[in-house]
Amino acid sequence: MIQINEHFAELPQSYLFTEIARRVKKYQEKHPAADIIKMGIGDVTLPLPKVCIEAMHKAVDEMAYKETFRGYGPEQGYAFLQEKIRDFDFKPLGVNIETDEIFVSDGAKSDTGNIVDILGIDNKIAVTDPVYPVYVDTNVMSGRGGKLLENGCWSNIVYLPTNSENGFVPELPKEEVSVIYLCFPNNPTGTALTREQLKPWVDYALQHKALILFDAAYEAFITEKDVPHSIYEIPGAEEVAIEFRSYSKTAGFTGTRCSYTVVPKSCKAYGKNGEVYYLNGFWKRRQCTKFNGTPYIIQRAAEAIYSAEGQQQVADIINYYHENAGIIRAGLSQKGFEVFGGVNSPYIWFKTGEKDSWKFFDYLLEEKNIVTTPGVGFGPSGQGYIRMTAFNTNERTLEAIERI
Amino acid sequence: MIQINEHFAELPQSYLFTEIARRVKKYQEKHPAADIIKMGIGDVTLPLPKVCIEAMHKAVDEMAYKETFRGYGPEQGYAFLQEKIRDFDFKPLGVNIETDEIFVSDGAKSDTGNIVDILGIDNKIAVTDPVYPVYVDTNVMSGRGGKLLENGCWSNIVYLPTNSENGFVPELPKEEVSVIYLCFPNNPTGTALTREQLKPWVDYALQHKALILFDAAYEAFITEKDVPHSIYEIPGAEEVAIEFRSYSKTAGFTGTRCSYTVVPKSCKAYGKNGEVYYLNGFWKRRQCTKFNGTPYIIQRAAEAIYSAEGQQQVADIINYYHENAGIIRAGLSQKGFEVFGGVNSPYIWFKTGEKDSWKFFDYLLEEKNIVTTPGVGFGPSGQGYIRMTAFNTNERTLEAIERI
Repeated sequence: MIQINEHFAELPQSYLFTEIARRVKKYQEKHPAADIIKMGIGDVTLPLPKVCIEAMHKAVDEMAYKETFRGYGPEQGYAFLQEKIRDFDFKPLGVNIETDEIFVSDGAKSDTGNIVDILGIDNKIAVTDPVYPVYVDTNVMSGRGGKLLENGCWSNIVYLPTNSENGFVPELPKEEVSVIYLCFPNNPTGTALTREQLKPWVDYALQHKALILFDAAYEAFITEKDVPHSIYEIPGAEEVAIEFRSYSKTAGFTGTRCSYTVVPKSCKAYGKNGEVYYLNGFWKRRQCTKFNGTPYIIQRAAEAIYSAEGQQQVADIINYYHENAGIIRAGLSQKGFEVFGGVNSPYIWFKTGEKDSWKFFDYLLEEKNIVTTPGVGFGPSGQGYIRMTAFNTNERTLEAIERI
Repeated sequence: MIQINEHFAELPQSYLFTEIARRVKKYQEKHPAADIIKMGIGDVTLPLPKVCIEAMHKAVDEMAYKETFRGYGPEQGYAFLQEKIRDFDFKPLGVNIETDEIFVSDGAKSDTGNIVDILGIDNKIAVTDPVYPVYVDTNVMSGRGGKLLENGCWSNIVYLPTNSENGFVPELPKEEVSVIYLCFPNNPTGTALTREQLKPWVDYALQHKALILFDAAYEAFITEKDVPHSIYEIPGAEEVAIEFRSYSKTAGFTGTRCSYTVVPKSCKAYGKNGEVYYLNGFWKRRQCTKFNGTPYIIQRAAEAIYSAEGQQQVADIINYYHENAGIIRAGLSQKGFEVFGGVNSPYIWFKTGEKDSWKFFDYLLEEKNIVTTPGVGFGPSGQGYIRMTAFNTNERTLEAIERI
């Protein structure tokens, strides 16, 4: 008899953004004329940089002729892209990453989700709270969740509150954990850690032989000098951390799909009897068996952003969204809200005051026709907060703030 | 302490095509002037159909302007592609598949690999032997393999010999199994099952509440009328089968990456206490959590092959490779080899005579400078066979046959 993975059945049916979409749809059906401004889901609005468009046209033409056609590429990505990543994303930070430590992929969601494949079932997982739901859901699916508690948390997962009380700097776990998800600049809070604040996490991992899964998808939005762009800026991190990067928010690749994951060759894990293994080979085996590489055309688009022109075009995009973030921050502060994030991040996180997150979400949707994301959807410590994104247009962002 | 998934450590290091590449490289280093013809890995050589090139240029241009830019798409694929799949790939067969049963993805390798996520750990897996290594390796990785035996098989996996003795029609499993991988037209043997030969498998699955994972990646190469294009042509299959399709071999998408998986809403699985679940929702949850959709540009390329022009261009490509298959079949038969496949498939499978597969592989590489795939690399029943692919050019295929 075919048996289902019953851990899937334990997951609550409704995924955060599905529930938001349901509420928006319901409101729209009742009020078809409403002019709704979407500042909920983290999707970009600016078109792709010109260099990417040109690179893709060229690559498409290559696919039209026998002589330049490309079939299967390396599962880990083409060297032309890996080399650019090494030289532009890491060398300037003083971080030495080799090309065979870089795995090009189709999205940070895929990689942060699939990484659990190579980890043993008995690992104790820690996440910051609030948290990007994929980290939790993929661990629940693979049997590391335990039981779903009434507050929406899972009994076997350690939640590390990250809120205004601790200045959005989570405390180290009190109980022993072996895998820690860190996303900085953070989704959803928009806050960042300084080098000094990140170091104790690397030290914890080194001391406890734990693994840090470091999601740096928002790295391009960093403006402050003491905020690290890569976890490998912290000494020793290459032994205990995997880093995820994405072009989705940097160059507007949410519908174009390219990302990469760094698994240093010195990054270790252990067998049940303490045997030492190296994760680089495990991830390579996983990717070679279950993935066939990112489209050639798309990898050429990603490569293009590393040209001088490309770097300028990406900087312009980031600046545009930063301007929006500034508008939201200033506007909300002026109205008396307590506002966080938005400086090293496209996300603004603010306190609703007395209302709970979903009630304030409904209020903004129904009274102001603005779609946001209720903080509690990211975990219990998000209760009473709302996330707004800076990814809409300048005009719409200004209008949204005026409405509030 | 971070624990590795130790099942990965149980997998033998060398993946079939890696070992082939190693031997080819070694030979090339010793004989740099050798003119080697590659008929090993199943990669295509003809460029993309013109309609795909045009569609991608258009889609790339859309990504350049705010008004037509596309961000996150639906994880399951755009309706424009799902509708074409429904109307062109299934309706003409008399098979009613709805768009929400179609999940567009980046490759059949990803989907046949990731499908194990939604299946319980205790399922008993059956594969035909020889077999595409991904089916076995992904089950070993997730803990369903048992122990590696001396013959290269896994103790918990049921292997169903498929060879000249049974006319390449495997017998139904003698012990109870709950998941059966079937790939027809078959990789690596190139043989197919008729509707009459496939029906007992669907009946077995219905009777034993088993699940068939049907890999139809080579469907476009079918020429014989009694060979089914989809498992859903067999009554009842929609309750017990998931079907995988790919554009890789059809339209040359090996480096462009697009495929789809059909999970009918009536396809069932069970909990440990016999509760009924439906796999469509499980796969949707898996994809929405660990995948962010296939690039918009690539989906437009796939859509284009369903136009009248596109259908003709794809037919021309398939005909070209069929011609090669005919050349290989005729040539090898003439030299006295026992030859199978190549009629409904781009793969030709032939008996080496007395030599074992790797010895004959080495002989062809070193004496004839032709790269093939040793049959035993696909499982013990492949011993004494060699796989050749029809994906090279007409000229090179002719030359290879002349050399033998």
